[in-house]
Formats: sequence, C-alpha cells, structure tokens
Amino acid sequence: MDSGLSATARAHPNIALIKYWGNRDDALRLPANASIAFNLSGLETTTSVAFDPRLPADSIEIDGVAAQGPAAERVRRHLDRIRALSGQGARARVASRSDFPAGTGLASSASAFAALTVAACAASGLSLPEEHLSRIARLGSGSAARSIPDGYVALETGARDEQAFAHSLAPSTHWDLVDCIALVSREPKSVGSSEGHRLAATSPLQPARVKDAPRRFEECRRAILEKDMLGLAEVVEQDCLLMHSVMMTSHPPLLYWLPATLNILHQVRHWRAQGLAVAFTIDAGPNVHCLCEAASLEQVVSRLADIPEVNQVLVCHPAPGATRVP
Amino acid sequence: MDSGLSATARAHPNIALIKYWGNRDDALRLPANASIAFNLSGLETTTSVAFDPRLPADSIEIDGVAAQGPAAERVRRHLDRIRALSGQGARARVASRSDFPAGTGLASSASAFAALTVAACAASGLSLPEEHLSRIARLGSGSAARSIPDGYVALETGARDEQAFAHSLAPSTHWDLVDCIALVSREPKSVGSSEGHRLAATSPLQPARVKDAPRRFEECRRAILEKDMLGLAEVVEQDCLLMHSVMMTSHPPLLYWLPATLNILHQVRHWRAQGLAVAFTIDAGPNVHCLCEAASLEQVVSRLADIPEVNQVLVCHPAPGATRVP
Repeated sequence: MDSGLSATARAHPNIALIKYWGNRDDALRLPANASIAFNLSGLETTTSVAFDPRLPADSIEIDGVAAQGPAAERVRRHLDRIRALSGQGARARVASRSDFPAGTGLASSASAFAALTVAACAASGLSLPEEHLSRIARLGSGSAARSIPDGYVALETGARDEQAFAHSLAPSTHWDLVDCIALVSREPKSVGSSEGHRLAATSPLQPARVKDAPRRFEECRRAILEKDMLGLAEVVEQDCLLMHSVMMTSHPPLLYWLPATLNILHQVRHWRAQGLAVAFTIDAGPNVHCLCEAASLEQVVSRLADIPEVNQVLVCHPAPGATRVP
Repeated sequence: MDSGLSATARAHPNIALIKYWGNRDDALRLPANASIAFNLSGLETTTSVAFDPRLPADSIEIDGVAAQGPAAERVRRHLDRIRALSGQGARARVASRSDFPAGTGLASSASAFAALTVAACAASGLSLPEEHLSRIARLGSGSAARSIPDGYVALETGARDEQAFAHSLAPSTHWDLVDCIALVSREPKSVGSSEGHRLAATSPLQPARVKDAPRRFEECRRAILEKDMLGLAEVVEQDCLLMHSVMMTSHPPLLYWLPATLNILHQVRHWRAQGLAVAFTIDAGPNVHCLCEAASLEQVVSRLADIPEVNQVLVCHPAPGATRVP
C-alpha cells in the first residue's frame, strides 16, 4: 500500500524499429538520431520506491537481491536527479522485479528506468507530464525514454535535454504487430549498451548512418500509420543492418551475431520471399526479433520453433506505457 | 606453339586486403576507391589466343566448353578493345582453362581477364608496359587489373582511364603471407560482382566507406612493407566488414555470409586473442580467407580443418603477376 512517500509503477521494455545507437552527448544521453519503438507486452518490470527519512542510505533490491556496485550506483544517481527536482531529501527503499525469463539477454534497463522514474517521481510528490517523465527516464537509460508513452513511440533527438523525449505515434491498440523473439543464446552481452553507444563514434560509418536516419524514421512512421507490413519490413531490416554495420566496424569491433542469428536472418528473408510477411530486427545481442501481424503469428512461431538453435520463442504484442499501480 | 598471331599467358586470381567495391564509372570500371591485394599461387588461369583471318567469328572455349551468352559476349568485347588498339582485324580462337577446384565460389574473372589481356595483346603484336596492360585488364574485370603486376599490388583509382591501373607495392618474395581459404559452400554466387558493384551506390554507407578508404589503404601499405601482421589484421578485417556493411545495406541487400562464415569469423578472432596471428577477409561470397605468416600456416590449417562446416582449405602463397608462357 503506497503512502504519501511511496509509489509503485510498472513498465515494459520496448523493441526499436528504427534504432538508437550513439549519443551526441553521453552524459545527457542525447541520442545521435531519432528512433521508433513499441512497448512489449508480457515482459514487465515493477518497481516500488519509498522515501524514508530514517534511512541512512538508499537501499536497492533488484529481483530480490541487494544491488551493489555500478548497478546500484546508477539507480542512486537516478534517485538523486528526482530528489533534486522534487526537493525530497530522504533516502529511498527501492524494490524492482522483472518477470523476463532469466538470462534471456533481453535488455531490461529500459523497463527498469521507466518504472523507477514513474515510481520515484510519484513517491516524491512530483506530478509531471509524460514528456518530462520521458526526459528523466532517458537520463537513466536512453531507451527507457521510449518505455514511458503508450504503444508505438518515437524518441526525438535534439541538442538540448528539453528536446529529447519520447511521445506516442499511435496507441498500442492501433495495429497488432507481434514481436516473436527467437532466443538463441542466454549468455549475457560481453559489451553493454552504454559502452556500445560510446563506441559508435569510432566507426567510420556512424555519420552516414545518422545522416540517413530521418529518411528511415519517416518511412517507418508512415508504414506504422498505414499498417504497411512490407514497407515496414524493408526499412526495419535495413535500419537494423545499418546499426550492426556501425557496431562491427567500430574500434574495438562489436560482432553480436552468432551463426544461429545469421541462419534466422536468411530464413526470415526466405519466408518473406515465399509470401509470409515477416521481418527481422536485432538489438545489441544475438537474439532475433521477428515481426509479423497477428494473423501470421502461429505460422511464424511454428517455423521459428523448428529451427534447432532456437531455444525459446517469446511472443509480445504492443503494450501501454509506464503506469502507476495501486 | 605460338606463331606470330598467337600467344599464351598465365595469371593468378588475387585476394584483396583493401577491398574495391563500387565504381565511379561502371562502363570504364573506374574503382570508387584504391585497393590492395596479393596474387594467389596455386590457383591459375592459362589462356591461349590465336587470331585467324579465316575465322568468321570469335571462337571462345572456357574449361573445354564453348562459351555462349553473356560470358562469351564479355570476352568478345574485350578482344574488340585489343583489336581497336592493335589494328588486328581478324577474329580469334580463345581457349582458357582455370585449375581451381570446380565450383569453389572463388572469383575467376580476375585471372581470366588478366591472362586474356596478356595473351591477346601479345598475339596481336602489341608490346605494352605493365601499367597499360593493367588498364586494359581493368576494362574486362575491375579486379583483373591487380592480377597483372607481381606480388603485393595496389590498384589506384582516378577520374580517368589513364589513372586507374595496378602496380606492385612489393614483390611476391617480400613477405610469405599465406591465404588459407576455408571453403564452406560450393554454390555459385546469387549476385555476381559486376552487378554488386552497381548496387554499392544504393547503400547509405558507401560514401563513408569510400571517404575513409585512403586511411585504410595507407595503413595496409605500411603493414605490408613493415611486415606488421597484427597491424595488417586490424585494418584488413575492418575493411572487409566495411565492404560487407555496404553490401548488406544496399538495395536490394546482399547478405553473402552463411552461419559457417560467422562461426569462422568468431574463431579467428578468438585464436588471435589467444596469440595466434591470423586475420580474416571475405569476398563477395561465404568463404573465408584466413591470412597468416608462413610460420603459423600448419596451425591455422589444422584449426580450420577441425571446423565441421569447412569442406576444404586451399593454401595460397603470394604469386607473380600475369606472364606469357611459351
């Protein structure tokens, strides 16, 4: 039960259709280019925050375990931002739990920092518009900004903090696009996203990727609004390959794909050539997100499950944004 | 036996360390960027050309079979260039044979057009300097220009035909670098190099790849001259991944890699991290060229042979340029 000094919030991770990779400002996490994503149902993080004047220090528990080291420090710094904004001086008790299958390699920082932002702002008495919550979430984790609004969201770029927030392009009910996540590895990433973003600038390809981003953003936005699955497939796959091109040519190079990843890429293209409207996208890891409309869901899942290297397929529909829960 | 109107020549294919991908002029095959390669011993094409005033048309035999269609037409157009230059009006009998293991997916157009150029020029009475032979070979197949000079070669770029020829950076005896070609597929390429070069401009990444090419060229040239294997490894792998980045983001996209290709990439990087100085490069196909110094050859070949998807490993040392044979 939330008192005046405590609140609980829930948020989903999101899958980017137009990727965000590299910052124009690493400290402020101002993205180098605007991105588009949708929130993923079925995967969620629930976070409670209680400010307590008696606490000597922030107490942070993640999935039932006391957080330590850099992970705890990152949460503490985020609480400091919200304390500075609200004037709430007390330390906080934070308990966060994600229901993702353990060790799936799915990024949880987006849902974690979105839920933390909404819970901590509410607990400290702040009542902020969505845009502002999104900006605060962004400071904790760039892609967390996209987990604040509902459904299909765009995260704008900008030269200043005030310009870089996410807003909803269409509600989660607009189009039943499904993300069938083919898990091929349960290894944690060797290089995390925060570090990866810093490496983007070392690739000779990053400026060209960023320069062409507005074209891809517009094409993706149009495809979503018009529910044009084949148009979406083309721009989403190219955008994903542009990001991985930057990753694999950065210094040091990041080659996140496994042989199984590439096998699924070829299969997806083969299926589409045969008439099954499905597209791939890949985050900073080896798992493949296969996008299709709900009508094709059964066929896509059954074909993915037939690939020997696929350990599990998670099915996620578009989800609402971050919300307080009673 | 060659008479005054006939000649035979031999040439090797070459492996590019700094890739050539995309032309500034497709008709003249003026490369978008300068490239570096070395000729490959053990693989060769031998071509005889005999001009004969009694022939009603060019007669072209490739590997014992009468050539037809676009392949024959491409040879005929090349003979026309040499006829225009020499004033030799007769049609020719051409017999060409490559000793590469059949269906290895290795590009044979480089050695084929280099041998054809040297044989046809000699048979038509032309005695041209190497630079000019290289320019003529380039008109038949861009990378054939590199199979004309000895050993380690650079193919310059330029706005005019006269500027774009290959020259030797170091003789084949300079450094015993070895190319261990891991064959993982015997399928012919779905999109040939000539068509691929035309697609390069459709990738948003091609201008950035070309713009950064002089830096990579210089770094590779230095590494060869100083026999700096680890410096070579870094620039060669990045350059290869830059080319494949352009390929996979062109329209339509070209994804030449197979799962086995990616497996070898990861293995090579793992071996290098363990202290075995080896590097990968990949042409427009799925096979992986693993470069090492002769001292590491046995170890590299034996590790490659242990990978289940590797059907065969070809071992090629640096080779001389194209030459007439008696």
